[in-house]
This record gives sequence, structure tokens and C-alpha cells, in this order.
Amino acid sequence: MSEVAITLEGWYCLHDFRSVNWAAWRLSTTEEQNRMLDELNTFLKQWSDIEESKQGSTAVYSIVGQKADFVFMHLRETLEELNEIETAFNKTAFASFTTQAYSYVSVVELSNYVNQPGTDPMENPEILARLKPILPKARHICFYPMNKRRDGNDNWYMLGMDERRTMMRSHGMIGRKYAGKVKQIISGSVGFDNWEWGVTLFAEDALQFKKLIYEMRFDEVSARYGDFGDFYVGNLLDAAKFTALLKV
Amino acid sequence: MSEVAITLEGWYCLHDFRSVNWAAWRLSTTEEQNRMLDELNTFLKQWSDIEESKQGSTAVYSIVGQKADFVFMHLRETLEELNEIETAFNKTAFASFTTQAYSYVSVVELSNYVNQPGTDPMENPEILARLKPILPKARHICFYPMNKRRDGNDNWYMLGMDERRTMMRSHGMIGRKYAGKVKQIISGSVGFDNWEWGVTLFAEDALQFKKLIYEMRFDEVSARYGDFGDFYVGNLLDAAKFTALLKV
Amino acid sequence: MSEVAITLEGWYCLHDFRSVNWAAWRLSTTEEQNRMLDELNTFLKQWSDIEESKQGSTAVYSIVGQKADFVFMHLRETLEELNEIETAFNKTAFASFTTQAYSYVSVVELSNYVNQPGTDPMENPEILARLKPILPKARHICFYPMNKRRDGNDNWYMLGMDERRTMMRSHGMIGRKYAGKVKQIISGSVGFDNWEWGVTLFAEDALQFKKLIYEMRFDEVSARYGDFGDFYVGNLLDAAKFTALLKV
Amino acid sequence: MSEVAITLEGWYCLHDFRSVNWAAWRLSTTEEQNRMLDELNTFLKQWSDIEESKQGSTAVYSIVGQKADFVFMHLRETLEELNEIETAFNKTAFASFTTQAYSYVSVVELSNYVNQPGTDPMENPEILARLKPILPKARHICFYPMNKRRDGNDNWYMLGMDERRTMMRSHGMIGRKYAGKVKQIISGSVGFDNWEWGVTLFAEDALQFKKLIYEMRFDEVSARYGDFGDFYVGNLLDAAKFTALLKV
Amino acid sequence: MSEVAITLEGWYCLHDFRSVNWAAWRLSTTEEQNRMLDELNTFLKQWSDIEESKQGSTAVYSIVGQKADFVFMHLRETLEELNEIETAFNKTAFASFTTQAYSYVSVVELSNYVNQPGTDPMENPEILARLKPILPKARHICFYPMNKRRDGNDNWYMLGMDERRTMMRSHGMIGRKYAGKVKQIISGSVGFDNWEWGVTLFAEDALQFKKLIYEMRFDEVSARYGDFGDFYVGNLLDAAKFTALLKV
Repeated sequence: MSEVAITLEGWYCLHDFRSVNWAAWRLSTTEEQNRMLDELNTFLKQWSDIEESKQGSTAVYSIVGQKADFVFMHLRETLEELNEIETAFNKTAFASFTTQAYSYVSVVELSNYVNQPGTDPMENPEILARLKPILPKARHICFYPMNKRRDGNDNWYMLGMDERRTMMRSHGMIGRKYAGKVKQIISGSVGFDNWEWGVTLFAEDALQFKKLIYEMRFDEVSARYGDFGDFYVGNLLDAAKFTALLKV
Repeated sequence: MSEVAITLEGWYCLHDFRSVNWAAWRLSTTEEQNRMLDELNTFLKQWSDIEESKQGSTAVYSIVGQKADFVFMHLRETLEELNEIETAFNKTAFASFTTQAYSYVSVVELSNYVNQPGTDPMENPEILARLKPILPKARHICFYPMNKRRDGNDNWYMLGMDERRTMMRSHGMIGRKYAGKVKQIISGSVGFDNWEWGVTLFAEDALQFKKLIYEMRFDEVSARYGDFGDFYVGNLLDAAKFTALLKV
Repeated sequence: MSEVAITLEGWYCLHDFRSVNWAAWRLSTTEEQNRMLDELNTFLKQWSDIEESKQGSTAVYSIVGQKADFVFMHLRETLEELNEIETAFNKTAFASFTTQAYSYVSVVELSNYVNQPGTDPMENPEILARLKPILPKARHICFYPMNKRRDGNDNWYMLGMDERRTMMRSHGMIGRKYAGKVKQIISGSVGFDNWEWGVTLFAEDALQFKKLIYEMRFDEVSARYGDFGDFYVGNLLDAAKFTALLKV
Repeated sequence: MSEVAITLEGWYCLHDFRSVNWAAWRLSTTEEQNRMLDELNTFLKQWSDIEESKQGSTAVYSIVGQKADFVFMHLRETLEELNEIETAFNKTAFASFTTQAYSYVSVVELSNYVNQPGTDPMENPEILARLKPILPKARHICFYPMNKRRDGNDNWYMLGMDERRTMMRSHGMIGRKYAGKVKQIISGSVGFDNWEWGVTLFAEDALQFKKLIYEMRFDEVSARYGDFGDFYVGNLLDAAKFTALLKV
Repeated sequence: MSEVAITLEGWYCLHDFRSVNWAAWRLSTTEEQNRMLDELNTFLKQWSDIEESKQGSTAVYSIVGQKADFVFMHLRETLEELNEIETAFNKTAFASFTTQAYSYVSVVELSNYVNQPGTDPMENPEILARLKPILPKARHICFYPMNKRRDGNDNWYMLGMDERRTMMRSHGMIGRKYAGKVKQIISGSVGFDNWEWGVTLFAEDALQFKKLIYEMRFDEVSARYGDFGDFYVGNLLDAAKFTALLKV
């Protein structure tokens, strides 16, 4: 059996994609709509407070195309907190004007980590900042889940540790070329959801998502070993933009 | 033809995943909701009584993400009992505020069992306790169905018994490293549902699900021969927590 | 081109899986429910009369899990008769409280048949009884559709007749070990539905389904050449049990 | 690059599969139902008139099983005409009691055609009759879409023209054995729908569909190179039978 | 790692496929319908104005078959503009009589581009016209998404740049044979949607779609390396035709 890579885990993560039932929404009264916008803004405020107190982080984006209208990406300390957030939202009047489009459960992960002997990585502030990150408020988001392939001769999990490490290093080099342009959060979902990882990218220029992922696809680790799920792309929402989005 | 492994079977098993129709639920009156919570609590009590009388066992968990809101995992002596439980629930007023999300039919199974000659395994208390187990009330649950692969050169069912046994032993060794951290129930579903096995894991620390399954994925038996279905992860519910979950 | 196996065909077969819309059903009045139970019982009686007059056969089972609540398995002389049965049921008030879950169209088939020269197999009573069988009223049913694989080196249809015959004979030997425990009806569906065959098993002890199919899976004909669809398992229904099932 | 086979194209083709919303239909008044049957009969008459004037052809069949209740198969000169037919039907009151089950867009095709020099095939009456056929009114219909496989060593499009032609000729020989029993319409759908071809078969004896397709499956062109979509089988409808089908 | 092809990107692209809820539409009053047709025509006018001012382009086509009733294909400078267009449409009364059928997010792309040193391609008018094109108003449209395959020995991303370039050149030669008959827009969707590219074709004669794509399928780049999604084909709509389509 091949040696297993050591991973570090931080905050649990829920991507919660929703669509608006526009036909119902436009038939509600302005008064009802205002009450629901209040509900929504109360949540946005709560999530923002939690972020400020460093007990979690939440990103809110609209989604382009029919797959969803918006996504809440929540990072929290426990699965119970994530469960409470989605349930609290489900109980609102506003939620009854939305439909569930897709969700993803994972945990922020650092892999291929090499610890310095005699130190506890969870006390290293740089490591902690990557495991329990404050999510960027970049103009665009991109999300997709992925697996490492186990298919005939293209079986990632049958490779030796060295081979995997070399390939991941080359992969990381491409990522580094996009430093400052694309911020990436990797979350592991083995045992939590249907794919092995979720990848969330943030950028001011959405073209950089395409350029980064396309370049990586020529890298052996993606070309031979990457399997990808659905891709979601979207635009940053704040309270004002969300209100404008819903204004009918 | 390769020699067939001997398996022992215990209680039949139904995983019954449901979602709440929150829009309808929040429009019902407090009086109606209380009546429905009474229905639910009556079931929880009945199932608990059956567990105490050792005629079966039931676990109740919430599910994180949009795949479902909660799961009932029932173990019973016969398929007819499982059928009666789901039908009885379907007939309640509360059930009409839920939708069916996913279900899985299987039977608790011990495989690769080596019987001692002259003994009946079904009279061995240790074996019986594993075939007719009382489900743990751990903080977290993880469920996924799986197949052994039959794909070109990666065909589990074309391997010899010895080769399979050696690989399963190595697999079991990983499991044993998690003893005390993760409790696992394997149920066979050949002839009962769409995959060959259901795997249900229980743990106080959900990260242990990820670490166990990820480590196993590098083991040849998973790397080359494992195919996995959807993963569900959740948090323990009791009567009080279920009432809180539904409180609007 | 490989020699084609000779097959004999008997009655056409429709598996008609349905689910109950429980939320609507429980809101109907007792009077309405009684009228609908009368409709249902009238059908059960008609189908039973047809069976007695040897013009067809019908089996009725509940299904465990969320895939369906019950199945009608009809054997009839023509596709038109099957069409009339499903349409007649669709027109009832009871049907409007059910949803269609899955269906399968096929024809009872004997394959690898070796005819004695100078005789007409359709005048052989033993053959006829297998082609136009009265369905067992066993405690349990198991249904799944399947294909013979055509995948790279595992291509059933590129094998020679002798090789196929040898493998099918070994396969048949396993089946024979379960004689008296499992009764099996094979129906061909090439040109009629999405898979090549439907397999319907009947047994007093549902565990025998698991043991038979699992044992066969190690046989080369299943291990290398079998692809399987969804599995359904259920419990025998008669008029009284069906009434009890629906009693709210 | 391998030489491309020459194809001839005739009428565009729309298979329009629909199901009846029986629950709603049975609640409509007899008067409403009669008005809707009038609508339906007006269409059937129009389509029959078009067929008589050789501007197109339409076949109408019921479908066995839950996939659909009936299919309209329309042949017309242009895609716009097909679009108009489906839209005209969608606008009727009757259509609002049906749901869309499946559709397929293609164009009648003759392939592997060898033209005689100096002649225009579209002026050859025999060719024209095959490209713009009047659809049979046989007792049964069978429809399925298919691809030629491009999978590892089984890649149809990487074969040379001669190899493809030899295999197609052997394939055609099987078809010819069923002359008089099965009438087949091949329509090409590259660029129009999700598969490369649609196959529509007509026969008085539905068993002939099974025998023809099963025999072909042992032919290399199907065994190694054929991928098949969903199969639909049905029974001929005329105005009287359609009225009877809908009579509640 | 293989050298990555340079690509140029222009306008972002949203294909927005919708179906009409005919049952609801025909029950609305003529007055309501007229108001909704006004809404629709206001959008068509706006989109046409934007096209005239060269800030984007929009094509409107009906779709043949049940996959959708019509498609809006929008090209705009930013993802935010595309998001605003779909949201604005969703908020109309007309939209509440439609359902979302499918959508695709991409960006117009030129690949295998060889830049002349010392020049900025984005200042080359010919390049710009291809990256920010005014969509043709041809009689027919054809849309499908596609991937380059990464499957065992057929792995596009493991090929060298030269091999890929040679194959793409041969591919381009076929396309050129259809110049004047088929106009093609390639848009890249890596990071934006589920496939790597969207292909949109325009032609006066829909048969040319079939002939072009079929011929390309024999080309190694498609035969071995092309994977294709769903195909949509349709007919040009203008304000008058759209009104006629909706006239009940």
C-alpha cells in the first residue's frame, strides 16, 4: 500500500446554492418582500459579525446561468453549526421563495504538509490562517468538485508517494503563477460528500479562472488523474446588490 | 469460478432519508405542528422500546447539506417489519410535510467469517452482537453505498479467494487503527438495492470519517476495486433536538 | 459473426411499479377510500380470474424502500393486452393517488433451448408451462434488469457459441443449487425496453436472493459479462394485505 | 483521415412522445373531453391529409409501459414545419392534459449509397420513396436512438471505409432476412439531437423486433461498435382507438 | 508537461434555453398576453439596440423538439451584464409562464492563435470582429458543448503541442470547406460551465450542420478526442415570428 499523505483540516465548509422562485416572488406584496429582505439582511449581518469575531466566514455570490441564482459559502468550526445555519435559513419566509439547487459539504484542507519536528502546526499562525481563512470579497467566484481518478492505468491511489509529490509540486507551480490573480481554497470532502475535493477560486478577473484551470489541464496530474464535477461561476453580492437582485 | 466467501447475515436494514417541506411546514399552525411533533415522538418512543427489547435498533440523525434533512436507520428481523415502519410513517400527518430523499435496503453482514467446526455461529454471542447490533448514539453518522469493481483488469470477482482474503485483511488492519474512534456497520445489499454494500460509520469526531476513508483509498482493495455512491454525513438527533430542528 | 442462440418466447410481461401519494390519500374521505379500494379489489379479482382461465398471470407485491410502494407484474398474450391493463388502471380514481415509479416491458424467454427434431416446442407442455407460467405467490419478490457486457475485452457478443454455452451451463448449475428455494423468471427485452433481460426472482426467504446473486457474481458470466440495473425487493400482497397497507 | 460515407437525406423527422395526466383528465367534464377529442381528431385528419398530398407522413402509436402514453412520429420537408406542428399541438386544450415524455429530431437518411454517374438520385423514384416515405400503419412500432462507438480499440470512426463497408453489408444481410416482417426507417441526427441515428421499426408481430435486434447484436458492427439509447415499443392507434384509449 | 496553447478571449456568452408553460399561457387573458408580449418585445428591442451600439449581440431562435421552446444567446462584455440580463428576464410576467430548460456560460475564444510580434491582437480589427462578433441572423442554429477526451490512450492533454496543432489544422480544413454555408462561434467554458467548449453553428440549410459535424467525426481529433454533450437545433425568431409562436 502506498504511503498516505498527511493532511491538516480547519473549518468545515458548506456551499449552499439556491434559486429564486421568481413567479412566486413577483406575486408577493412589496410589504412582504420588504419583510423578507429584512430577514435576509439580518442573516447577512449575523454572518458578517461571526466573521469579524473570527468564528467563521461566509461568502455570498450570485451565480450566472440557470444552475442557481446565488450561493452562500459558509465556513464554521463544526458540522452542527453548518446544519444550524442552513436550517435557520430554511425556516425563513424568504427561503420559501427559493429552491435548493445544489450543496456541498467539506472541510478546509492543507495537504502535502511537511511539519517541522517539535512544533504544532495548529499553533502556527500562517497555517491557521490558511485552515480557518476569511473568505475573499473578490469580484468573482468559481466552484467545482473533483476526484483523483482510479481508472485502469490512470490510478492516482496506486502511485507511489514520491511520484504523487512530484506531480503535485508541478501542479502547485502553475497555481503560484496566478498568485495575486486567483485565490484558491481547497476543501476535502472524502466521507462528507460525493467527490473527494471541492475547489473554490476567487478573482477580480473571471478570465483568470479559465486560464488557470486550462493551463493545469495540460499538467499530468489533471490530464491523467483529474475528474471534475459541475462548474459554477458568479459575481460578488453584498446587501445592496442582493436587494437590487431581488427588486421587482 | 472463484471460491465464494461465506457471509453471515443478521438484521435487515432500511436507511430512510427525508427532507422537510419547510414552506408548507412554516404555514401550518402551532397546534398542527404540536400534533405532528407528538406523532414523531410517539414513533421515536416506539423505536426506542423495540431497541430496549432487543427486537431491533434505530438511529436518528440530521443530514448536513441539501441531500436530505434527516435519516432514520432501522434494523429489524424481517423485510416486512421494515416495510411496515416506512408505511406507518408515510401515513402520518408529519410525513406529508416531508419528501423522500433517498433510501437503502440491505442486511447486516459479516463476511470472510471463519467458523469453528462443530459450532453454530448464530449461537455465538459475540457474532450475534455484531449481526444484530444496537446502533451507537455517536455524535456523527456517515453513510455511503459501494461496489467491488468489475472493470477490465480491475475485476474483484475474477480474483482468487486467497488474493481477495489478503487484500481484505490489509483493509481490515486500517479499520482496526480507528477502533474506538469509528464504529462501522457493513450491510450487504446484493439482490436488495442498487449497490453491493452499504457502509454506515459512527464517530464522535467527524474528521475521523475523512481520515479513515482517505487512508483506505490508498489501499489496493479500494484504490483498484472500490466504486462508491453518494456520501451522507450528519449529526445525532434525539427527541429534544428533533423538536428544536422543527421549531419555527 | 458468432452463431446466434435460439430463444423461445411466451407471454409478454409488464412490471408496473407505483408509489402512493400518501399526503393526498390521507386527506381523502373514508367513503372515497372505500370506493377506491373497491376499484383496486375489482382489478385484483379480474386479474385472478384471468389467471384461473390460464390467459395470463399477475403477481402483486409491496416494495421496500422509497423506490416504489408496490408492483403489479402482469403476463399476457399480447402487448395490446398489457397496454389495456395499465391504461385501465390509470383511469381509476385510485390511480390518481399514485405516481408512476418505474416500469419494464419484456417477454418470457427460454434461451439456449435445444429442440428435439420433428417436434414443436410450443406443443411440449413442460416448455409451455415455462413460457406461460403462473407466477408464484411466494413471500418475497426480487426484480432487476441486466445486460450482457460489450466492453473492450469483455464483450459477450464477440464470444463463440461454445464459449457462451459453457459459461451459461456453469451459471445454470448455480441456479439449480437454489431449486426449491428460489424460482426465477427470465424475460427478454431486446427491442422492448432499455436492458436486454429482466430477472424476476421469488422466494420464501429473501436472504436466498442475496446468496444466489452473490454466488453468481463470482461466476465468469456475471463477473466479466454482467451489467445490472436497479434492484427492487418486496413482500407479497393479497387483497387483505393491500387494504391494510392503504388503511389510514 | 478516413473517407467519409456519402449520405442522402429526405424528410426531417420528429418523434414526439407524450403522457396523459390521467388524474386531471378524469376530472374534466364529458363536454370538455369531447371538445378535446375533437381537437385531437382535427389534427389526425390534417396529418392524414398532408400524407395523402405527399407533403409528409405521420404515424401515431400508443406506448407500452410508463415511459410515455403515445407517440406522434412526423415527417416533413423542413424543420420549421416540424416546429409548427409541435407548437400547434402544445397550444390545444388537450395538450394541457398531457406531459412531454421524450422527443427526437432527425432526418430520414440513406447511407452507403452508390450513385450511378450522370444521374441525380433525387430524381430516382425508388430513392425518393425511401427518403420521403409514407410511414407504415403496422400493428407495432419500436424506436431507439444509437451511436457508433468511439471507445479505445472499438472506434468506428477510425476504421477505413472498406472495413466499415464490409461490416455494414453483413449488417444489411441480417436486415434483409426480415424483409416483409420488419420495415425499418433510419434517420440521421448528427447535429440535430443527442445520438447519431434514430431507428424506427414497424412490424405486425412485435417478437420480430426482438429477433432482429438480438441477431444483429452478435454482428460485429453492433457487438463492438453499437451504443444504444432508450427503447420504446407500442401499438398502432387510429382515431377510434385513440378515442377509446382516452375514454374514461 | 505539454505546452499550453495560447487563446484569446472576447465577449462572455450566455445560452439561455427556455420552455413555455403552455397550459398556463393559454389560460391567461388576451389582455395579459398582450402585456407580456410587450415585455418580450421591449427586451428584443433593447438587445437589438445594444447590438447596434456594438456593446454586445443577441440571437433568438426557437428550438425543435421537447428540450426547449426557444433560446436567447447573449454576448456581453462582462459576466455581470449576462447576470443582469437573465435576472431582468426572470422578473417579467412573461418569464413566469416559462420554465428554465438549460443554460451555458462561456466566453468567445480564438485558439491556436499565432500573434505577430510587436502587435496587440486586441487592436487588430479582424481579430476583434471574431472575438466580439455580431451574431448571424441565419435561418437555423445548432448548439452543443464538448470536451477534449482524457481517456486511457485517447488523452488530448497528454499530446505534444505539435501533434495537437497538426490535428487541429486538419480539423480546420474541414470547417473551411463549409465557409459560406456554416458560420461557427467557438466559446471556451473551462472554469465557467460543465464542458470545455460550446460550439454554436449558424446556417441557412440545417442539413449543412449534419454534413459538417458528420465529416468532422471521421477526423482523428473528433473520432478519438471529442466528447459531445446535448445537441440543440432551431429556427430563427424575430419579433413577428415570436409573437406568432405565442399566439393562442
